[in-house]
Amino acid sequence: MENQINLTYKQLEIDSLGEQFYDAPINITSTYDENWIKYESDNRRILFENVINVCDNVGLSSQIPLSFELAGQRKKLYFNPKETTFAIVTCGGLCPGINNVVRSAVMRAYYGYNAKKFYGIPFGYQGLVPEFGYSPKELTPKSVRYIHEQGGSVLGSSRGNQDVRKIVDTLIKLEVNSLITIGGDGTFRGANEIYEEIKRRGLKISVVGIPKTIDNDLLYIDKTFGFETAFSEAAEAITRAHVEATGAPNGVGLVKLMGRHSGFIAAYAALALREVNMVLIPEQKFKMESVMKFAEKRLANRGHMVIVVAEGAGQEYFKEERDENGKPKKDASGNAKLEDIGHLLEQEIKKYFKQKNIELNLKYIDPSYMIRSAPAYPTDAVFAGQLGSYAIDAAMAGKTGLTIGYWKGSFTHLPLKLATSGRNVISLESELWQSVLKATGQPFDLH
Amino acid sequence: MENQINLTYKQLEIDSLGEQFYDAPINITSTYDENWIKYESDNRRILFENVINVCDNVGLSSQIPLSFELAGQRKKLYFNPKETTFAIVTCGGLCPGINNVVRSAVMRAYYGYNAKKFYGIPFGYQGLVPEFGYSPKELTPKSVRYIHEQGGSVLGSSRGNQDVRKIVDTLIKLEVNSLITIGGDGTFRGANEIYEEIKRRGLKISVVGIPKTIDNDLLYIDKTFGFETAFSEAAEAITRAHVEATGAPNGVGLVKLMGRHSGFIAAYAALALREVNMVLIPEQKFKMESVMKFAEKRLANRGHMVIVVAEGAGQEYFKEERDENGKPKKDASGNAKLEDIGHLLEQEIKKYFKQKNIELNLKYIDPSYMIRSAPAYPTDAVFAGQLGSYAIDAAMAGKTGLTIGYWKGSFTHLPLKLATSGRNVISLESELWQSVLKATGQPFDLH
Amino acid sequence: MENQINLTYKQLEIDSLGEQFYDAPINITSTYDENWIKYESDNRRILFENVINVCDNVGLSSQIPLSFELAGQRKKLYFNPKETTFAIVTCGGLCPGINNVVRSAVMRAYYGYNAKKFYGIPFGYQGLVPEFGYSPKELTPKSVRYIHEQGGSVLGSSRGNQDVRKIVDTLIKLEVNSLITIGGDGTFRGANEIYEEIKRRGLKISVVGIPKTIDNDLLYIDKTFGFETAFSEAAEAITRAHVEATGAPNGVGLVKLMGRHSGFIAAYAALALREVNMVLIPEQKFKMESVMKFAEKRLANRGHMVIVVAEGAGQEYFKEERDENGKPKKDASGNAKLEDIGHLLEQEIKKYFKQKNIELNLKYIDPSYMIRSAPAYPTDAVFAGQLGSYAIDAAMAGKTGLTIGYWKGSFTHLPLKLATSGRNVISLESELWQSVLKATGQPFDLH
Amino acid sequence: MENQINLTYKQLEIDSLGEQFYDAPINITSTYDENWIKYESDNRRILFENVINVCDNVGLSSQIPLSFELAGQRKKLYFNPKETTFAIVTCGGLCPGINNVVRSAVMRAYYGYNAKKFYGIPFGYQGLVPEFGYSPKELTPKSVRYIHEQGGSVLGSSRGNQDVRKIVDTLIKLEVNSLITIGGDGTFRGANEIYEEIKRRGLKISVVGIPKTIDNDLLYIDKTFGFETAFSEAAEAITRAHVEATGAPNGVGLVKLMGRHSGFIAAYAALALREVNMVLIPEQKFKMESVMKFAEKRLANRGHMVIVVAEGAGQEYFKEERDENGKPKKDASGNAKLEDIGHLLEQEIKKYFKQKNIELNLKYIDPSYMIRSAPAYPTDAVFAGQLGSYAIDAAMAGKTGLTIGYWKGSFTHLPLKLATSGRNVISLESELWQSVLKATGQPFDLH
Repeated sequence: MENQINLTYKQLEIDSLGEQFYDAPINITSTYDENWIKYESDNRRILFENVINVCDNVGLSSQIPLSFELAGQRKKLYFNPKETTFAIVTCGGLCPGINNVVRSAVMRAYYGYNAKKFYGIPFGYQGLVPEFGYSPKELTPKSVRYIHEQGGSVLGSSRGNQDVRKIVDTLIKLEVNSLITIGGDGTFRGANEIYEEIKRRGLKISVVGIPKTIDNDLLYIDKTFGFETAFSEAAEAITRAHVEATGAPNGVGLVKLMGRHSGFIAAYAALALREVNMVLIPEQKFKMESVMKFAEKRLANRGHMVIVVAEGAGQEYFKEERDENGKPKKDASGNAKLEDIGHLLEQEIKKYFKQKNIELNLKYIDPSYMIRSAPAYPTDAVFAGQLGSYAIDAAMAGKTGLTIGYWKGSFTHLPLKLATSGRNVISLESELWQSVLKATGQPFDLH
Repeated sequence: MENQINLTYKQLEIDSLGEQFYDAPINITSTYDENWIKYESDNRRILFENVINVCDNVGLSSQIPLSFELAGQRKKLYFNPKETTFAIVTCGGLCPGINNVVRSAVMRAYYGYNAKKFYGIPFGYQGLVPEFGYSPKELTPKSVRYIHEQGGSVLGSSRGNQDVRKIVDTLIKLEVNSLITIGGDGTFRGANEIYEEIKRRGLKISVVGIPKTIDNDLLYIDKTFGFETAFSEAAEAITRAHVEATGAPNGVGLVKLMGRHSGFIAAYAALALREVNMVLIPEQKFKMESVMKFAEKRLANRGHMVIVVAEGAGQEYFKEERDENGKPKKDASGNAKLEDIGHLLEQEIKKYFKQKNIELNLKYIDPSYMIRSAPAYPTDAVFAGQLGSYAIDAAMAGKTGLTIGYWKGSFTHLPLKLATSGRNVISLESELWQSVLKATGQPFDLH
Repeated sequence: MENQINLTYKQLEIDSLGEQFYDAPINITSTYDENWIKYESDNRRILFENVINVCDNVGLSSQIPLSFELAGQRKKLYFNPKETTFAIVTCGGLCPGINNVVRSAVMRAYYGYNAKKFYGIPFGYQGLVPEFGYSPKELTPKSVRYIHEQGGSVLGSSRGNQDVRKIVDTLIKLEVNSLITIGGDGTFRGANEIYEEIKRRGLKISVVGIPKTIDNDLLYIDKTFGFETAFSEAAEAITRAHVEATGAPNGVGLVKLMGRHSGFIAAYAALALREVNMVLIPEQKFKMESVMKFAEKRLANRGHMVIVVAEGAGQEYFKEERDENGKPKKDASGNAKLEDIGHLLEQEIKKYFKQKNIELNLKYIDPSYMIRSAPAYPTDAVFAGQLGSYAIDAAMAGKTGLTIGYWKGSFTHLPLKLATSGRNVISLESELWQSVLKATGQPFDLH
Repeated sequence: MENQINLTYKQLEIDSLGEQFYDAPINITSTYDENWIKYESDNRRILFENVINVCDNVGLSSQIPLSFELAGQRKKLYFNPKETTFAIVTCGGLCPGINNVVRSAVMRAYYGYNAKKFYGIPFGYQGLVPEFGYSPKELTPKSVRYIHEQGGSVLGSSRGNQDVRKIVDTLIKLEVNSLITIGGDGTFRGANEIYEEIKRRGLKISVVGIPKTIDNDLLYIDKTFGFETAFSEAAEAITRAHVEATGAPNGVGLVKLMGRHSGFIAAYAALALREVNMVLIPEQKFKMESVMKFAEKRLANRGHMVIVVAEGAGQEYFKEERDENGKPKKDASGNAKLEDIGHLLEQEIKKYFKQKNIELNLKYIDPSYMIRSAPAYPTDAVFAGQLGSYAIDAAMAGKTGLTIGYWKGSFTHLPLKLATSGRNVISLESELWQSVLKATGQPFDLH
């Protein structure tokens, strides 16, 4: 992450519902010993910046340095565990690992805190609005036991936010003490509104987010669940594209991958496989002509080529669609609607080589939904499980308006507002992008 | 296979270059014992029909019944093994297992017959025409040792036939005794022309085909290599589509699969996974309205649905593209150009539900090239290896103008002409299609 | 299959409970049209031998030739479908595809025949004996909907037969009309005893077997479910062994595979991968010294080697364990207890090379249980599903004392007794074994 | 990592061969622009500890805090790139990702620095000692292009160190400027001796290590390559064990995993899958009786159970093997020989349940070599590639006697000596172990 940061300590403070009155339970199973359980403390924090320049006269001032509150089980709880009711909701597009998060949260609530009840909300925020007619289903350790083996979300998901007043009404009606929301940008803006509506009404309901963005593009969060699975599956698609490219004269394998604003999946998949000859990402504008010239040169030299394009790249080639008020069109999640750069590239390349009268065999691969719906790889399974567990810990301690984060090897607490305040993108000067350029051999400058 | 057959014994006769003069070699490695090797004989044949009706007064007449010549090593050879030069060429689209066939043919020629030389022809028939500028590469047991681990074709492929006179000139120049062609319909028509040109010139070059059609749609051949891998990979795509369909309100997973004229991949993938609710295949015309009504009913009842459509289905919904002479347009392989039924269905379904004002979340998955480029599953690896090996056996015995086939558990010899004389399609009354209907619950009649 | 066969037509006759009185139901779903359903007839049979020698003066006599009754839905049924209760039981070791069979049988019974009830018996024949304390669980289309995604058996299995009188008592108590047993040799002997006990008591309960032997070693049955998955997974283990073998000086990868009496898994896995240098199977006795000499030669030439040994090979190297009565010891399934040839070979090879003072790096891989518990590959999934469905068809027609078989491309009915009357083994003169020898380069004679 | 640390800044200093005289090359390909390349500096360091306690009056003193030098390309080089010759050697057991490291190092040397030559040393340190008769093979971008697709090591490996004087003689003879060693503990002790011998002779050859320990048990290094692949594959083995366990009455799946001194693979695999009921690791001594009692209770309650045991656990149950001098026996790598705890547990469990007369179905799975020889998963592929690249960067800058490390998200330089000064183990009080206990439900105390 190489983005300019302008943060204050204040911004990193986590809100709380009030005094932590209850002791964490210790005798749920007979196997635990009180003295053995290790609790996390609000005072231990992880530094924002852990690289120093020993030539600067740093000494790190006596002020508290920029740092994140650490996630983890607290010894004192705000909620009385055995009276606590949770609800969990999954929003936005699918992402590998959602079911792992849900499962782990439920297990943690029941086995870690002896919680009273745990609701699974069907189909995203829609499930919290009575008009849609969905009923929450109760989740138990037994009912979630095997859900992590499946991709997708057993609860179902939906895009878009709903009326926060109705949502809070539903939470009250269900006597929910804590709402866990799994989602991305748009979902978190919604979660933040719910959190503020709760505050406005003086309710004691905590709102805890778990970041879900397959693109791994959140500021202040090093890694989101599902990302490793996504680029691993993308790498497989690239292998197949390479096979197609080498299987015909002047073969081109063109793979469109996820990445609305950030090209992380494209970059990592290219690094994992190293059979990619050009990566186009949203962070770098490109001239169509430069792409064509590089492709022509590559085919002349080697006879085959693989191009990877992130869905958000090259949007400048489309006239922005605007609604009746002249505003850019957005989808139900509030994301700008992307035009299909993959098909545009396909057409442009075909046109270019036809004009030049050069034989071309282009195969277009779009594995998007096959990746989003994959079950989590084991590394993501562990990671997603930890996120779900920490969300319950945060909620039990009365923390609210926050999301669980991950920073330089530690799980953190991050205010919801901050999590949606910007985006992590690939700096073209970063080690990551340099590695991609070295691996592909593509020109640095595509203008 | 439930198609009407009208065959004569004569049609099943295999052409031969002449008397089989040479003994099969037995001392290539020290490990074989002459008495132990089992040779196949031209007299042993496999019956075309092995199901009888015991009530008919059959008794199977004293005539030779309809039957195929069996593939296998012959004791007497037409070619002198250690003077024999082979060439192998791969044509048309990729299909899992091509490299297994190539590898096995090379191994068989060298280790089974001590052959003199084995050429790999680059990029299909193009590689046999000097103007394209490709050079044949020599294949050896060492050079092909690991190629079966990769998908695709290490030789490269191309579509379309070339001038057979030039091709035969090249074969003469390379002193090739036998040409092995791996390909489908179009390739076989080309191979047959090469065979006839050779005959016309009185040359002693054998032409042996190995059928490659991922659609498994050849008449008189029960199974072609790559088909099992193809429907297995397709089943994985369907799983993902099902996950997407259940992950959103009124979710529809729409999967387009291969199948130009026959829906075997779609049918078997649906049977393997059994989470498909509708299969559309070229063999059955359908009314768009019937499809929509079934989809609406299914979503109303269950909230999600998976539709599988073979690429050749519903072509009647497009006006046929015609060239300047008023003939239907064909691609380089001579196949009729198919319109994109997948995208048409996508649009029609979206339109229908929008008109009805019903929420719909349709995810479109087209795994085509990811399937074609997959490495062969072990069952296909064994099968493809056998085909390659039998092709060499046939060639060494001087057989020509034939393809290796597979019939009711035995490998066979089949005249090239017969192999392209028609297509195997799914009978709507077959056990297979009945099973699909039972598994999906779709209506039998889509009119 | 190259074994000597001595069969009479009589032996292939299928027993029946009586006249088929009921019509097959046609209006279960609204989608079927009576005239469209294709029923199988008892008169259509598949020939035992479909290879003829056109020089023999066969003419196939006017007698009914040796042939199997075909499986399939009959138009007339013995049981009244909507009054029929099924029970299904899975016995013996795990095998990929069991759940596919169970699922398909349940679906067929409910959707194909509108059956009354379907019991799943827990833990094999134990579940039919009250003393063990298990209760049958009712299976419904909903409860079995996703079970095919898991390996193993959702019902659980057990080895060994139980008192058939108690079993039949339980069947009566549960008002079961048909018992479907999934199992191997031992299970079928048990099933046959149950069938005979039922007959003795004059009961109208049909007993239908579905053959489960991962070794694919049943006579008169070309292929059993799970076999393709088994050798495919075995091939993966061999790849890993090859990697280990090439990763160290004089590396030997030694892989022990299933195969009590028949080396089919070892042979096919070796053919699929073609990186195996020696295959030892039960069908071929070997001198330890010959194995060592070949290994030494191979390592001297190539520096690495992969050996595959089937578990039943080399049993002559162990003194047979005998029980107190002097009889060979058997396990609970009635199978002779096998000694561990894998570990013996490991020790012998290490000893040999140590004596010769040659560096050796042997890695031993035993993937047995990982293979048995794998989920079915799609080809096996389709196949297992068909078996389950045909078992219900046979039962509804009142057939009993039979197992579903598969012969040269068709599903068949086979008397239970015949299915356990012998074993299919690899003939050392078969094409299959010849191919293995060619692929490995091992000597034909290991004496 | 929760181990007690007692480090000084001095210990973290990296040795250097001398002044960095040469400029990093910038014009190897035409695609790079001088101003764009970002170099790392020796002054930027990553903090050892990035968690602070805001209540302590830290302020982090004005001294340079404990921190690691960062890995990365330096602007000034010690070696003249186009005159530099590398050698790379892979030692010890196989681990997923070795070929990725080798490939990346070769690519980096040629494409990043225009290096002169790159030797691959066959079969570990043996390949550097003439008596073994191996010849180094030259590695080029072309020859290593596809090696990352295979598991294992294309160079081959061997265990044990060799005479460092002979090794250094060989390096001189080959005119090697930098030796890259991929290996673990023992290898690094060897590498350190080579480094010291070089220093003793006043030679200018840099020695750079890349840590390879599938157990992920190095101090001061957060993650080693291959670990993620290893526990992911282990998780698959556990799935299969779970299937076996549920498939028979009182089924127990017993899985032995890698982990000589540290149970990380066992712990993470258990967390990934969450179907494990007991994890035994070297860090925790256990009473056999406690294990048995827990197993008995679990089986009584649930009827099935999965136990995972790391190979180094329970070694106290074996009398230590000692050599003639009374020292513990070690293998060729200098590792203490481990007794087989897996088989001991298997026997003990069987004995216990037999005594209690309780039916037991135990299936033992040891996937060790299948895991070690697996190809790297994409996450490991990226990671291993980065390590190989950074090793070349360090060597070019003249750094020596170091290994590439990874610490809280950054790649680091670590003195070879430190890397072998201790081991990272699981603290029984760590979050990790707590999570495992929660996931399994096993008792904290096994005494």
